[in-house]
Amino acid sequence: MGKKNVTFADIARYTNFSKTTISRYFNNPDSLTLENQEKIAEALVALDYKENKVARILANGKTEFVGIIIPNLYLHYYSQMLNQILSTYETYGYKFLVFVGNSKKDVEKKYIQELLAYKIEGMIILSHTIPSEELASYNIPIVTIEREDQHTCSVNTDNYMGAVQATSLLCKNECDVLIHINSHVSPQVPAYGRIQGFLDICKERRMAHELILSEFGHSYQDTFECIQEIFRTLEEKYAGKRKGVFMANDTHANMLLNLIVRKYGRLPDDYRLIGFDDSPISSQAIIPTSTVGQQIDKIAREAMELLVMQMNERKKRRPVPLKEPVHKVVTPVLVRRETTS
Amino acid sequence: MGKKNVTFADIARYTNFSKTTISRYFNNPDSLTLENQEKIAEALVALDYKENKVARILANGKTEFVGIIIPNLYLHYYSQMLNQILSTYETYGYKFLVFVGNSKKDVEKKYIQELLAYKIEGMIILSHTIPSEELASYNIPIVTIEREDQHTCSVNTDNYMGAVQATSLLCKNECDVLIHINSHVSPQVPAYGRIQGFLDICKERRMAHELILSEFGHSYQDTFECIQEIFRTLEEKYAGKRKGVFMANDTHANMLLNLIVRKYGRLPDDYRLIGFDDSPISSQAIIPTSTVGQQIDKIAREAMELLVMQMNERKKRRPVPLKEPVHKVVTPVLVRRETTS
Repeated sequence: MGKKNVTFADIARYTNFSKTTISRYFNNPDSLTLENQEKIAEALVALDYKENKVARILANGKTEFVGIIIPNLYLHYYSQMLNQILSTYETYGYKFLVFVGNSKKDVEKKYIQELLAYKIEGMIILSHTIPSEELASYNIPIVTIEREDQHTCSVNTDNYMGAVQATSLLCKNECDVLIHINSHVSPQVPAYGRIQGFLDICKERRMAHELILSEFGHSYQDTFECIQEIFRTLEEKYAGKRKGVFMANDTHANMLLNLIVRKYGRLPDDYRLIGFDDSPISSQAIIPTSTVGQQIDKIAREAMELLVMQMNERKKRRPVPLKEPVHKVVTPVLVRRETTS
Repeated sequence: MGKKNVTFADIARYTNFSKTTISRYFNNPDSLTLENQEKIAEALVALDYKENKVARILANGKTEFVGIIIPNLYLHYYSQMLNQILSTYETYGYKFLVFVGNSKKDVEKKYIQELLAYKIEGMIILSHTIPSEELASYNIPIVTIEREDQHTCSVNTDNYMGAVQATSLLCKNECDVLIHINSHVSPQVPAYGRIQGFLDICKERRMAHELILSEFGHSYQDTFECIQEIFRTLEEKYAGKRKGVFMANDTHANMLLNLIVRKYGRLPDDYRLIGFDDSPISSQAIIPTSTVGQQIDKIAREAMELLVMQMNERKKRRPVPLKEPVHKVVTPVLVRRETTS
């Protein structure tokens, strides 16, 4: 603002090309020789045209913009992931246009259309509203994280392995019965591995077990009441037995822990508890809670690597598209704290 | 990608203008009559030039991009604020380029330079590294939130009023001594109002009180150990007295609460506790904790309004710059839960 724009005439004068040539440079650079493209590019720098990246984008199509679509930032998992993705700016120089979808499919689609119009070079998608088949049809580099990913490249936590670790730890705690509490997860979503891993280990070890699937509602209060109800059931049904409870996430684990501690003033010996995610609440809880830690920094890094690889391919003279989507899996880390022994 | 670009020649043919005129439209639109500008603008739409917003930006300088610089997304306060700001897309249509500064001033400055080169229309700054005087010198619309704001427009919580509410509530709880625990906040930062408000009310009511200012360190563990030390001091110094403790934020309040409940199995009658922020941890704590709630949705909305007002002014033929930075203040809301009566 306030600064005078460098015009095509200025560039023409500086380079001794005609204004038509300068115009061609911006509209159809490949119609010029590489040598002349470079001369003009150098002139743009010399004339301080670098102040206007938008012009450069027009010239070479490289916006260095990446779109991120994320469901919300209330859940620590998402805000931590976003934090890690944004921090890759220092490594790759990509700038991030961020959109919070709040599960509104129409607004999300409109936003993606806008991003495409701005010529973003790629997208990282964490939201669940748009099927991967539709995402793939946008025909730009995409990486999805922890969502249905049949037709897109993706990076996911090895949820199955995480459940195996959690369930095995509860087995070692000599529990009489193992319980996994989760919502009705679709088998197509990576997080379904938590259910499958739990069931497989229980069967393999011939452990008495129960899988409790429930609708938790959308507010903290709804969820809390739901877990309160489950707690009452566990207390009755398994009185006197040592219960090893594997919760689907740390927020739910914290709710159950609070219910237990408020009833008994401590965590009685007939409860063992483990959550998932290693979100801050698990270490800030009244009793620091064991959990399966997602390596969020590593997931974010792998996602950017996978995206940059695709975006770089696009910039080649003869890009070779991927034959199959690449799916990367990051191993979770068992975090043992005071709610298991 | 794949779609053929509309060239200047296409636009010239369609409008019957020369290519030089089209070029002038993109480089110096004001050299054309408004009527001719409109004719070309219509042609761009007709020719599906709308697919390339980047070209439109070159034409009218309206990128609809807003930059956000935020210190981190680990603290719920920041991620909730970002969530609310991003959600204004549905109201104003602005797209957000988000950067996490992690207190690295140099990277932050480099990033802002990049944003300016991309012709962002405005910035919302939550990070603390760059003085407001320097921010103002960038000469684009800026709104800061909860940071030093002498030279920039800003929206802040009325921290002083929040402290008055918290301290008054502790007074009503018939405490023998009031304690405020905070870090060494600079008087230039809005959050300093929490200290001032506490001191003023204690003096006005002639309450015995103590202000404990401490360095909490940067990790959860460091902070926890620091609060553990403070807890030991309080237990000794004020044994048998009812202590009304006002913590600077909910994370710290939760740490103190956990220490108390782990020692006594409950919150004894000689403790009253209140935090600040109404972040999720305050309601998810072992005992739902009273707090001063920041109206984050309202702060985000006011910040965008203030920014849009400035950005719209810039688009006028004869923009009138603000004579003085505008400072808006949002009143916090006292949230009474189970740690006060």
